[in-house]
Amino acid sequence: MAVRSRDPVALSEAVLAGDRGALPRLLSVVEGGGEGAREVGRRVYAHGGRAYAVGLTGPPGAGKSTLTDRLIGLLRATGEDVAVLAVDPSSPYSGGALLGDRVRMMDHANDPGVFVRSMATRGHLGGLALAVPEMLRALDAAGFPNVLVETVGVGQSEVEIAGSADTTVVVLPPGSGDGVQANKAGLLEVADVFVINKADDPRAAQLHRDLEMMMDLSTWPDGWRPPVVRTVAVSGEGVADAWDAVSLHRRHLESDGLLDRRRDRRAVAELQRILAARIEQSARAQLAGPRFAGLVEDVTSRRLDPWTAADEVLRAAR
Amino acid sequence: MAVRSRDPVALSEAVLAGDRGALPRLLSVVEGGGEGAREVGRRVYAHGGRAYAVGLTGPPGAGKSTLTDRLIGLLRATGEDVAVLAVDPSSPYSGGALLGDRVRMMDHANDPGVFVRSMATRGHLGGLALAVPEMLRALDAAGFPNVLVETVGVGQSEVEIAGSADTTVVVLPPGSGDGVQANKAGLLEVADVFVINKADDPRAAQLHRDLEMMMDLSTWPDGWRPPVVRTVAVSGEGVADAWDAVSLHRRHLESDGLLDRRRDRRAVAELQRILAARIEQSARAQLAGPRFAGLVEDVTSRRLDPWTAADEVLRAAR
Repeated sequence: MAVRSRDPVALSEAVLAGDRGALPRLLSVVEGGGEGAREVGRRVYAHGGRAYAVGLTGPPGAGKSTLTDRLIGLLRATGEDVAVLAVDPSSPYSGGALLGDRVRMMDHANDPGVFVRSMATRGHLGGLALAVPEMLRALDAAGFPNVLVETVGVGQSEVEIAGSADTTVVVLPPGSGDGVQANKAGLLEVADVFVINKADDPRAAQLHRDLEMMMDLSTWPDGWRPPVVRTVAVSGEGVADAWDAVSLHRRHLESDGLLDRRRDRRAVAELQRILAARIEQSARAQLAGPRFAGLVEDVTSRRLDPWTAADEVLRAAR
Repeated sequence: MAVRSRDPVALSEAVLAGDRGALPRLLSVVEGGGEGAREVGRRVYAHGGRAYAVGLTGPPGAGKSTLTDRLIGLLRATGEDVAVLAVDPSSPYSGGALLGDRVRMMDHANDPGVFVRSMATRGHLGGLALAVPEMLRALDAAGFPNVLVETVGVGQSEVEIAGSADTTVVVLPPGSGDGVQANKAGLLEVADVFVINKADDPRAAQLHRDLEMMMDLSTWPDGWRPPVVRTVAVSGEGVADAWDAVSLHRRHLESDGLLDRRRDRRAVAELQRILAARIEQSARAQLAGPRFAGLVEDVTSRRLDPWTAADEVLRAAR
């Protein structure tokens, strides 16, 4: 019997029992946050860890969506189920993303082995960084062995979201050398695989050299130097190589317990982030209340500097 | 007598008394954070609010440095002193920035009316968002009536830093329509003035239309719609118009107490950010300690989901 309600308990049980029809509503509950999301989290968390999550990030125009579509095709050809979570951290509206969803879902409308879902921020990035791991766990609970997480951008926030995957693929278009320069440290920190897409562009070779040169200056304590793969996603060229690089990285992580260590670190980081968000929320609420109105006035009138004011709030809260 | 020490009290007194030779060391103390920076903050905060801070942000290659240099020239021609704080949030090293400093400072080496300083993150963006307002206050205390804050990038973090100025100028190169699309909401939130630099490029007209169209869909509760100015910074074309737009915005803010309200909001936001950072720091330290080791183990072994674990930490801390 299909679950019709938005009850988090019923939806969680249905999805855990294999009813993917309940998945869109379960994800809406998770995305909505609050007590419903917490209830889902308590139920699905223990069942997690089976899915392998691959993050894809890169600047707008890098061709991530096309590459993702090709990867779906590749996986389906080998009979593997795949779910896609498309995240747009910079858009406060989900209109465009949802339209894209529909277009992309149409290709797979009759294929229960493919599931595509978009998320957009509602103006709160901290929230997105916390929401994505929860969404991943729900897709994991639905039994998808592969989950692709697509984010737009190479800023700090996008890179953080992509970093919540097991393997992170940074997709760059030729001619994006400046952007690479600007965010070198952030890219190197998260990239497990570099893909130069639209590699039929003559500037691809230059970008390839820039990336290798940048990596020559780095060290690889885990014994993995990100390979650079060239693809032309529109024609499908190199897409299998890109997935091979992902699989190679997965096998590397699975040896020597690296994958478990990486996931443990992520779980602890998530716990820290949740704690910080909850404490921050309560600090904001306190500051907005009558108790500290005089203190805030002291700061805006320059009688008290904000660091000393923060000390006073912390002392009072103790 | 020139101050030779790195003592925050002596340096603060010297700079407040007009000794700009002590400014580089004062800024180093502020950048270093910790108790030294707190001491400086306590001493200079009351003397703040005289400088007018103009933020300039935009993608790499937009020509912000050239525009900044032109603005320095413009201000010096009218006899006004100006300080520049160049922030590179994505670079963990300050080597490149410092080199740029030296080159740029050379032009003004014998001009005590110009001061240029670079900052780069040391891998911690939250820290930079907190350090920039403190650096601004130190430059303010040194008596610079104009402070230009230059940040690279149009990501969330760069935009946040630029937003700590009184007037924020978003500098875009022609052909950056995609980037504008990707970060529409963030740009509109902070831009008081748009500058299309390298406007001799034929694509400048298209970007101009895109920006106006984007703004047509917005509302302006404060009665200010960001003007779009075209410049060719290398030749100096349009630079005076850009500064006129900044001055017009300043006069707009100064009427009706808008500037004071904006600065008050910034002070409260800074206080919230400081509180959140300090609380987060202590939450991290607690989690790393022996008290919650079992709880962390429960999370990594999937016996307990991270949200429920966070509840337990908060309960124990109460």
